Amino acid sequence: MFFQQEAHQCMLKDKIISSCNECDGARRRPAVRCSACRAAIAQCTIMEVMEDVFMLVIVTLLSVLQNASFANKVEKECKTANAKTAAYERVYCANRNCMDTYPTFIAVMWCAGICLSQAPAAFAGIMYLFVRQKYFVGYMGQTPQSTPGYLFGKRIIAFLFAMSVVGIISFLLAEYFAVDYKEYIRTLTNAASALLLIP
Amino acid sequence: MFFQQEAHQCMLKDKIISSCNECDGARRRPAVRCSACRAAIAQCTIMEVMEDVFMLVIVTLLSVLQNASFANKVEKECKTANAKTAAYERVYCANRNCMDTYPTFIAVMWCAGICLSQAPAAFAGIMYLFVRQKYFVGYMGQTPQSTPGYLFGKRIIAFLFAMSVVGIISFLLAEYFAVDYKEYIRTLTNAASALLLIP
Amino acid sequence: MFFQQEAHQCMLKDKIISSCNECDGARRRPAVRCSACRAAIAQCTIMEVMEDVFMLVIVTLLSVLQNASFANKVEKECKTANAKTAAYERVYCANRNCMDTYPTFIAVMWCAGICLSQAPAAFAGIMYLFVRQKYFVGYMGQTPQSTPGYLFGKRIIAFLFAMSVVGIISFLLAEYFAVDYKEYIRTLTNAASALLLIP
Repeated sequence: MFFQQEAHQCMLKDKIISSCNECDGARRRPAVRCSACRAAIAQCTIMEVMEDVFMLVIVTLLSVLQNASFANKVEKECKTANAKTAAYERVYCANRNCMDTYPTFIAVMWCAGICLSQAPAAFAGIMYLFVRQKYFVGYMGQTPQSTPGYLFGKRIIAFLFAMSVVGIISFLLAEYFAVDYKEYIRTLTNAASALLLIP
Repeated sequence: MFFQQEAHQCMLKDKIISSCNECDGARRRPAVRCSACRAAIAQCTIMEVMEDVFMLVIVTLLSVLQNASFANKVEKECKTANAKTAAYERVYCANRNCMDTYPTFIAVMWCAGICLSQAPAAFAGIMYLFVRQKYFVGYMGQTPQSTPGYLFGKRIIAFLFAMSVVGIISFLLAEYFAVDYKEYIRTLTNAASALLLIP
Repeated sequence: MFFQQEAHQCMLKDKIISSCNECDGARRRPAVRCSACRAAIAQCTIMEVMEDVFMLVIVTLLSVLQNASFANKVEKECKTANAKTAAYERVYCANRNCMDTYPTFIAVMWCAGICLSQAPAAFAGIMYLFVRQKYFVGYMGQTPQSTPGYLFGKRIIAFLFAMSVVGIISFLLAEYFAVDYKEYIRTLTNAASALLLIP
């Protein structure tokens, strides 16, 4: 019966623990468990967390890909231009501005996704990547007199920030007053994220 | 009885699983569970993790707010000044120096919070934000001859780094030698974090 | 019997809950549990997650240490050189290039470690730190005419990125088609990470 409860929590845990003869599976106390079983249990926790963040991981990977493409453009310009030409200056500056806000974006997207709901956070993240691409291309085409400013994607960052704040407040309400509005807020957020599509 | 154990783990899980008729709640094996129940269980893990990191999330959000205010100052100076004036140069440089150390700060704060204890890590994070604000304002008011240096908040970063190292060592001790000093260390850390208030 | 199951999950949880008289330990429902017990349970989840990420934490701390050493070199050069000398320009630029790619590196290393397996991700991270050290030293020794380019460690970032993509795909397969190749992939990744040692 004990084993059945263990199996209840995680497919992976079930599979590995049931086949472990060394430490007699789940019947023993944790202190005497073999290292393979302990690793399986830890992995199981990660898998359960993964289920709630995998979209954020995908958006993060896409953003890394975009970073790499930006960096490659700088690298290429860096090698062709011996002197510091205007074109090099511009691509370097565009890359710099994008990189300056990158940690802020990643931090706020993950906070929003973990505190409230991953789907709208990931959607906003994808929108941000599109805006960033447009900014980068626009920056490179500009003459130095009319640069498109330092900031971009302000609306998306504000949306993600608002999501995080709402998520934290609803978490604290659920924690200390046992009031749970999370489902309603999540539905609202899903609807509100569509507003980001308006240019 | 099975259901009661499920309820034991998480309020959210309790609520949703008990009302799920489709997959007969917690009585079945995980492989045949409906997607709503699986999502509820994943969400529950996140909620349990949240309880241990919510202060870090709040400090991260505050730091994002500060980043945005810095970026806004650069943006404003960027628009008013056509030529690259000394004021623009200084605000740009202050923002750059702050952004350069931002990922390091976030990484070490989260490591310290997760490895050891979230309250002193979040407190040190707040202190760092104050120091950063002071550095930014101080940098903008300075004449170019007497810039306040490249680094700031060294003591706070060192404190967070020490917390992380102690946390990792105590984790490895608990893991491989079953020695658990974590509670004593945590009390010590809470006391030590007050030393950061000394200017 | 109920208590025994609780004990089954976590050493820490076991210890604290069994000694809690206030809320009668694990026998009550979560809503009426005392705050000490709730904190213990949350801490337990973190500990289980820690088991799967502690190597990544160690590499992150090492990278923070390296960042600090780079920043210190800039600070020192900044103080000795009143005018912007060539040496200052070079150390500043080397530090800048290293910092530009730092968030990308951290993001992709953690994604790879969480999605697939922490040991090869941490190993690749260590390799990256060596490459970065070499790049920084090489940059400072160069004459301005022959800078070593903007990018470095491309192969390692690509390896970590591939690990993340494979991990995400295997997670989605396990989630939606109940196909689990993760063990085979993990063994392969461990072997493949040795290829990074080839210069």
